[in-house]
Amino acid sequence: MPAGFNSLFIPGPTNIPNELRAAMNLPSEDQRSPDFPALTLGLFRDLKQIFKLDHGKVFLFPGSGTGGWEAAITNTLSPGDTVLASEFGQFSHLWIDLCKRHHLNVDAIDVAWGQGVPVDVYAERLANDKEHKIKAVLVCHNETASGVTSDVEAVRRALDDANHPALLMVDGVSSIASIDFRMTEWGVDLAVSGSQKGFMLPCGLAIVAASEKALEASKSAKCPRCFFSFDDMIATNKDGYFPYTPATSLLHGLRASVDLLLNEGLENVFSRHNRLAEGVRKAVDGWGLKLVAEEPKWYSDTVSAIYVPEGFDANDVIKIAYGRYDLSLGGGLSRLAGRVFRIGHLGWLNDLMLLQAIAGAEMAMADVGIPIELGSGVRSAQQHYRQTAKPTELDLAG
Amino acid sequence: MPAGFNSLFIPGPTNIPNELRAAMNLPSEDQRSPDFPALTLGLFRDLKQIFKLDHGKVFLFPGSGTGGWEAAITNTLSPGDTVLASEFGQFSHLWIDLCKRHHLNVDAIDVAWGQGVPVDVYAERLANDKEHKIKAVLVCHNETASGVTSDVEAVRRALDDANHPALLMVDGVSSIASIDFRMTEWGVDLAVSGSQKGFMLPCGLAIVAASEKALEASKSAKCPRCFFSFDDMIATNKDGYFPYTPATSLLHGLRASVDLLLNEGLENVFSRHNRLAEGVRKAVDGWGLKLVAEEPKWYSDTVSAIYVPEGFDANDVIKIAYGRYDLSLGGGLSRLAGRVFRIGHLGWLNDLMLLQAIAGAEMAMADVGIPIELGSGVRSAQQHYRQTAKPTELDLAG
Amino acid sequence: MPAGFNSLFIPGPTNIPNELRAAMNLPSEDQRSPDFPALTLGLFRDLKQIFKLDHGKVFLFPGSGTGGWEAAITNTLSPGDTVLASEFGQFSHLWIDLCKRHHLNVDAIDVAWGQGVPVDVYAERLANDKEHKIKAVLVCHNETASGVTSDVEAVRRALDDANHPALLMVDGVSSIASIDFRMTEWGVDLAVSGSQKGFMLPCGLAIVAASEKALEASKSAKCPRCFFSFDDMIATNKDGYFPYTPATSLLHGLRASVDLLLNEGLENVFSRHNRLAEGVRKAVDGWGLKLVAEEPKWYSDTVSAIYVPEGFDANDVIKIAYGRYDLSLGGGLSRLAGRVFRIGHLGWLNDLMLLQAIAGAEMAMADVGIPIELGSGVRSAQQHYRQTAKPTELDLAG
Amino acid sequence: MPAGFNSLFIPGPTNIPNELRAAMNLPSEDQRSPDFPALTLGLFRDLKQIFKLDHGKVFLFPGSGTGGWEAAITNTLSPGDTVLASEFGQFSHLWIDLCKRHHLNVDAIDVAWGQGVPVDVYAERLANDKEHKIKAVLVCHNETASGVTSDVEAVRRALDDANHPALLMVDGVSSIASIDFRMTEWGVDLAVSGSQKGFMLPCGLAIVAASEKALEASKSAKCPRCFFSFDDMIATNKDGYFPYTPATSLLHGLRASVDLLLNEGLENVFSRHNRLAEGVRKAVDGWGLKLVAEEPKWYSDTVSAIYVPEGFDANDVIKIAYGRYDLSLGGGLSRLAGRVFRIGHLGWLNDLMLLQAIAGAEMAMADVGIPIELGSGVRSAQQHYRQTAKPTELDLAG
Repeated sequence: MPAGFNSLFIPGPTNIPNELRAAMNLPSEDQRSPDFPALTLGLFRDLKQIFKLDHGKVFLFPGSGTGGWEAAITNTLSPGDTVLASEFGQFSHLWIDLCKRHHLNVDAIDVAWGQGVPVDVYAERLANDKEHKIKAVLVCHNETASGVTSDVEAVRRALDDANHPALLMVDGVSSIASIDFRMTEWGVDLAVSGSQKGFMLPCGLAIVAASEKALEASKSAKCPRCFFSFDDMIATNKDGYFPYTPATSLLHGLRASVDLLLNEGLENVFSRHNRLAEGVRKAVDGWGLKLVAEEPKWYSDTVSAIYVPEGFDANDVIKIAYGRYDLSLGGGLSRLAGRVFRIGHLGWLNDLMLLQAIAGAEMAMADVGIPIELGSGVRSAQQHYRQTAKPTELDLAG
Repeated sequence: MPAGFNSLFIPGPTNIPNELRAAMNLPSEDQRSPDFPALTLGLFRDLKQIFKLDHGKVFLFPGSGTGGWEAAITNTLSPGDTVLASEFGQFSHLWIDLCKRHHLNVDAIDVAWGQGVPVDVYAERLANDKEHKIKAVLVCHNETASGVTSDVEAVRRALDDANHPALLMVDGVSSIASIDFRMTEWGVDLAVSGSQKGFMLPCGLAIVAASEKALEASKSAKCPRCFFSFDDMIATNKDGYFPYTPATSLLHGLRASVDLLLNEGLENVFSRHNRLAEGVRKAVDGWGLKLVAEEPKWYSDTVSAIYVPEGFDANDVIKIAYGRYDLSLGGGLSRLAGRVFRIGHLGWLNDLMLLQAIAGAEMAMADVGIPIELGSGVRSAQQHYRQTAKPTELDLAG
Repeated sequence: MPAGFNSLFIPGPTNIPNELRAAMNLPSEDQRSPDFPALTLGLFRDLKQIFKLDHGKVFLFPGSGTGGWEAAITNTLSPGDTVLASEFGQFSHLWIDLCKRHHLNVDAIDVAWGQGVPVDVYAERLANDKEHKIKAVLVCHNETASGVTSDVEAVRRALDDANHPALLMVDGVSSIASIDFRMTEWGVDLAVSGSQKGFMLPCGLAIVAASEKALEASKSAKCPRCFFSFDDMIATNKDGYFPYTPATSLLHGLRASVDLLLNEGLENVFSRHNRLAEGVRKAVDGWGLKLVAEEPKWYSDTVSAIYVPEGFDANDVIKIAYGRYDLSLGGGLSRLAGRVFRIGHLGWLNDLMLLQAIAGAEMAMADVGIPIELGSGVRSAQQHYRQTAKPTELDLAG
Repeated sequence: MPAGFNSLFIPGPTNIPNELRAAMNLPSEDQRSPDFPALTLGLFRDLKQIFKLDHGKVFLFPGSGTGGWEAAITNTLSPGDTVLASEFGQFSHLWIDLCKRHHLNVDAIDVAWGQGVPVDVYAERLANDKEHKIKAVLVCHNETASGVTSDVEAVRRALDDANHPALLMVDGVSSIASIDFRMTEWGVDLAVSGSQKGFMLPCGLAIVAASEKALEASKSAKCPRCFFSFDDMIATNKDGYFPYTPATSLLHGLRASVDLLLNEGLENVFSRHNRLAEGVRKAVDGWGLKLVAEEPKWYSDTVSAIYVPEGFDANDVIKIAYGRYDLSLGGGLSRLAGRVFRIGHLGWLNDLMLLQAIAGAEMAMADVGIPIELGSGVRSAQQHYRQTAKPTELDLAG
C-alpha cells in the first residue's frame, strides 16, 4: 500500500465527505420499525427539492444509474414503443442499448462526440411525428464520457413547440445535485440519478424522479418489471416503507447528503462546481490542450475530457498518474479510448484538491513525453481560483 | 433516542460484526483501477466456496434478494415458460408473483404455511411432464415468513428420478451462509442470496450463483434484461470489473464477510446456527407456545415464527417489545399477521444475545397479558446453551 | 474470534454509543485553527452543567482517572500537607497511595470494605483540627471496587459544622454523569472524572473540575507539576486552546457525550441508572446472594459487587463467563479477589442489556457449581423492569 | 462547513491513514481480559523495533509529548540534579521549562534558532564536568518550531569522549518513526515520542522508551511521580496489563500504525520522508525564500519553517491559507511568530499531497502581496518528484 491518500478524480464515484461516511456507518436496523418512516418520509420530501420537482415522486432503488434507466423505461413504456434518442458518448450509447434490449424501437441520432443533444434534429423529428409514435424523448443531460452538457430546457421547448405528448426522460446521473436541473420548470417526466456522483455516496442507490405524467403512464406501460416497479414502491413508500429490504445504510447516507446540499444551497453548489470546473479548463488552456467538448456551450461543470496530443496514448498518462502518483483519472471510453483522459470535478471538492489533480496530470503527461511545461496548468488554475476566491471572515479576522 | 443498544432479532438485516463495518467504511475508489481486480477476482473465487459451487459463476448485483430472483428468472427463462413452484409463506408467494410479472406460466402449488416444499407433489408433476414443459423448478430453501426449511436435495432427487431437465432454482436468501447448502452436490442451477442475512452486511447486494447449465440456458433465454444481465457481467467480471459502477463499499464488506465465514469454517457456522436456534425452540417449549413450522423436519435454524395464543394480537407483543424494551422482533406477514412474532437467529449472534431476545419477548408477552411465566423461556434456553457450551481454553486456563 | 458481540459489564470502560464512536472517527485537525475554539469553549461551558458547577473551571487532560487525581492533588497542595482520607476499596486505597508518593501526609481511616466514607469520623477529625492542619478532605464518591456510594453532601456538612477551610476533593470517576453530583451545592472544590465511565467514551481524558477556592489554592501550591498544571491550561483554555496538543478525537467524542447527557436530562440519566441498578440488585436477591455494600444507603447505582458463596472462587465465574459466554464481568480487587464478581451498570445501557449480564452470570455460576436456580435472577429483574417500564407512544400507537 | 477536504500540513497531528482510523473505531473492551495481553505484549515488543532498542522497555502513557518529557525526567532524576540542555526553538525551550518546574538545575545553552544542539559546547561542558554533576543531557532531536534536526549520535560521542555517565535523553516527538533514530546504537537512554506525529494517530499517547541504564536510574530517582511511574507500568506491563485504564482505542491504532511502519520498512519510511521534504525545500528555493534552518545539516525531513520576506506578516499567509483555501499551515512560535510559516511533511503523505500544500502556500502568499510567481514552487517540487519517482509495475504494465 502506497503512503498517502489516493487522489480520486474520476467522474464518480466521488469523494465521500466524512459526515456522510459517519452517517452510513451504523448498526443494522429494522426497516419495518415504527421509527423508520421518520427517515424515509423526510427523504422523499427533501429529494424533491434537489430535483426541483413540485409534484410527482422520487424512488430509491438499490441499484446504480443503469438500474435507474431501466426503472424509468420499464415503468412507463411498452415493448415496441418508439423513443427518440441521440448518441454522443458511451453513456448515451448504453442507455439506447438498454432501450433496445427492452424491445423498444429507438430512433437514435448519431452525433459527433464533443457535442450534445441535437435540439434542432429533435425538434424536426417531433414536428414530423404527427401520429405521436414517439412515446419518449431521451436526453443525456451530462455525457460523462465526453464532458458535454446538453440543454434540457431547449428539448422541452421543442416538445412544446411541436405540441408533442412524449415523455421527456433525462439521464442526470452526473449532473443532478451538481449542475442546474429543474425538473418541474423544464417539464421533465423522468429523471435518473445515482448515489455516487453529486450525492457523494458510494454507489448502490438508483434515484429516479417521476412527474405525475410519468406516474400516469406507468399505469398502462407493459414492459415487464418487478424489482424496479414503481407501483410496489408507491404502495409502501407512502407509509415510509419499502416492498423489499432497502439499502438502509445508504438511506442514512443520503439523508446526510441531502442535508449537506440543502445547507450549502443548491445554487451555491452549482456555482461552486462551475468555478472549480473553470479552473480545470484554464489549466487545459495553460497546457495548450483541447477538450473533447467542442464549444463552451457544451462544457460540463462536472467532468472534463481532455485530448492528449496526437502520437501519445492517453492510457499511458492514466497508468503513470495512478502508478507513480496515486492519482485516479478517468479514461477514454469506446471511440475515445487512448485519446483522452478525464478529470472528474464533481462532488466534495475544493481548489487545492483540483490543483492536486492538475499538478499530477502535468507530471504524468511529462513522464510520457508530452511537451508540457510543468506548472503551466497549475498556474492558470491558481490564477482563476485566486481571482474568484471569496475572502472569508476567518482569513480577515483575528 | 433511548439509551442502550437496540436488540435486533428480525430475520434480516442481521447484526453487522464490527470488522465488517470497518471494512465498508472507506474512501471512494476507482472501480476501473488496476488494483481493483485483486478484490473482485478473489471474491468471485471464494464465494463459490460459500455456495459449494464447483463450476459456474457467482454474480454480484447492486440490489436485494428480489433483484436476485429477477436476475435468476430473466437470464434463464423466456416469456411463456412454465415453472413449477410452491407457496407456503410470504416470500415463496412473492417469488411466484415476480415470475408471473415476467410472463412466466407458474404451476404454483399451495401448501399449508408451516410446511415446506411438497417434494412428493413436485415428483409427481415432474414425472408427468413427459414433454418437459416445466423449464424450472423453484424451491424456497428457507421461508423467512414461517421459519420453515425445505429439502433441496430431495427435490434434486425428484428431478433425477424423473430424468427431468428443468433448471433447479433456489431462494437461499435466508439460508445460504447460515444453513447447509451444497450447490453442486445438490445440482442446484441458480441460487439467490443477499448481503443482509448470513453475510451479515447491510442490504444492497443481490448475490446470484449459476451453474454451467444455467449459464448455457442464458444464451437462449428471451426475458428482457439489462441491469441484471449475466452476459454483461461475464464479459467484464472475467477481468475483475463490472459493466456499471458496482457497490464498492459492500464488495469490501463482502470480502471481510467471506473471510469471517471461511475462517470460522462453514460447518462450524452451520452448527452454531443450529445450536442457537435450538435454544430458541427450547424457550418456545418453555413458554408452552407453538412454532408455525409443523414438524421438526421443517424447523428453520435461521428464524422461528411463534404463534401467540388465540385471543392475543402478536403485533401488540412486537410493538411493546420495541417501544418499551428496544427489542426488534419480526412480525407476521400476510395470513400470519397478528398471529405470530418471529425471532431471527441468524448471523453474528451468540448465546447471551439470544437470551436477550428471549427475555425481552417474555416481558412483552407478559405485558400484553399472555400467561407466560417470566424466566421460563430463558431458563430452558440457558439449560440448552450450558449443556452444549464448549469449555474453552480461556475459561479453563489462568 | 467468537461470533456475536461481547457483553461488556465491567464498571468501565463502558459501552460507547454509536453516535459517540462516529463523533470520534475524524480526520486530524489543526488544534490551533481559528475554528477550534468553537468546539472547546462550548465544552468548557457545558461540562460545568454536568458537574453542576456554577463558578470555577473544568480541565481536560490527556490521561485517566489516576491522572485526574494527580492533577487535583499537585495543583492545590504542597509537600507535607495533611489530607484526611478513608480507605474502603481498591480505588480509595490507590488515591491515598498517590498522595503519599507526592509527599503528602495522609490521615487515612481504614473502613470495612462494604461501607463508605465514615462521615462521623471525618466530623470528629475536622472538629479536632483546630489548627487547620488538614488541607484537604478526600471522598471517593463511588468506590468502584466494592460498589459503594458515599455521602458527599454529609462530608460538606461536617466541614461546615467544624467551620473548616480544607478543600473538599471528590473522586467521581465512576459516579459523575451517572449518579447525582452537585459540585457547587455540595461545596466540592475538586472533582475528578474520566472519559470512560459515565461519559461513555474510551479512556484517554482526565476530566477535573475546580472551584474558585481550588483555583485560588493552586496559586500557592508547591507540588511540582507541569503536564497537569492548571495554570498552563487556564492561560490557553480561555481562548479555546491548549498548552500542548490535546486529544482532539476524544474532545469531539466528549462534545457528543455531553449533548447526549444534556438531551436526556441529567435527572433522567440518574433515574435510569437507579432503575437499572435496582434490577441487578433484585437479581442478586433472586439468587440468594449478597452485595459487598452492607446497607442500602451504600448501594451504588453504577456497579454492584456480588459475593459468591463460601467455597467458590469468583474468578472461576468470571473466567467462564468470558470464555464460554463472551460476558465481561468485573473481578474482585485486592482483598476482594476471588470473593466477588462485579456487574457494571453504568453508561449506555438498557433493560435487555442488563438481563443479558444477569442471564450470563447465572450460567457461569451454575457452571462452577454454585447452586443457583437458572432464570431466578432474570425473573426478578424482569419483574422489576416490567413494573417500572414506561409505556411509550410507540408501543401504544399504530 | 466548506466543501472538500481540509489540507492538513501542520507538523502534527498528522493525517491518519484510513486503516488506522478503522483500527481505533471499536467497541469498548475489558482491559483486564485474558485476550488483552495478545495486543499489548506484541506492541511492547514491536515498538522496540521502531525505537531500535535492543534492551530496555517502551512505556505507553495516556498523554502527549509533554507527558512523555515529564515521565522521562521524573522517573530518572531527583530534585536538584543538573541537566545539560540547549534551547533553539519553542519545544526545546518548553522541555527546559518543564525540568525547572520539577526542580532540576538546568544548564541551558542558548543557541540561534535555525541551528541545533551545539555538540562542541556540550562536549566542552561534559569534559569539564569532572565531578559528574551533570546527570542528564537533553537533545531535542527535531525542533518542530524551526525545522532543525540535531545530531544525536555526535552527542553520544561527546559523552563517550568525556567518559561521562550522564543519561542521554532525546525528544523524538517529531522525529521517531519519520527520521533515522537508533536508540541502542546511539546510546540513548530515554526517548520520548507521541502518537500524533510519525505514528499517524490522534494525540493521546506518550510513548517513552528507556534503556536498561535509565531503568536502573529510576530505582533511586526522587522526583515525585505516580501517574507517570515506570515502576507501576513495569509491574503490570510484564503480563500485558496496565496500572490504570489505558487508552485502548489508541493502543489498537498503534498496533495498526506499527504494522504499517514495519511493513513499509523503517528505512523506506525515512527515505520517503527525505524525498518529500526535499521537494518542499526545492519549492522554497523556487520561491526565492529561506528556511529557518541555517544549513543543510540542520534541515529537518519532517517540517520546514519558511521565512516570509521582511515587511510581511506570516500570520496573514496562514490565515488566508486556512480561510480561503482550507489549508492548515503551521505558524511561527515565540520569537518566530509572524516571521515564518511551517509546512509539516511527516506522516501519511505523498507527492500530490505536498504539491497541494505548496500550491496553496503560493496562492496565500500571493494574496497577501508577497511577490511570488504562481507555480514556481510547484514546478520545482514537481521536477524533483518526477526525477525521483519510482516507476511501478502498475504504470508499466497493462
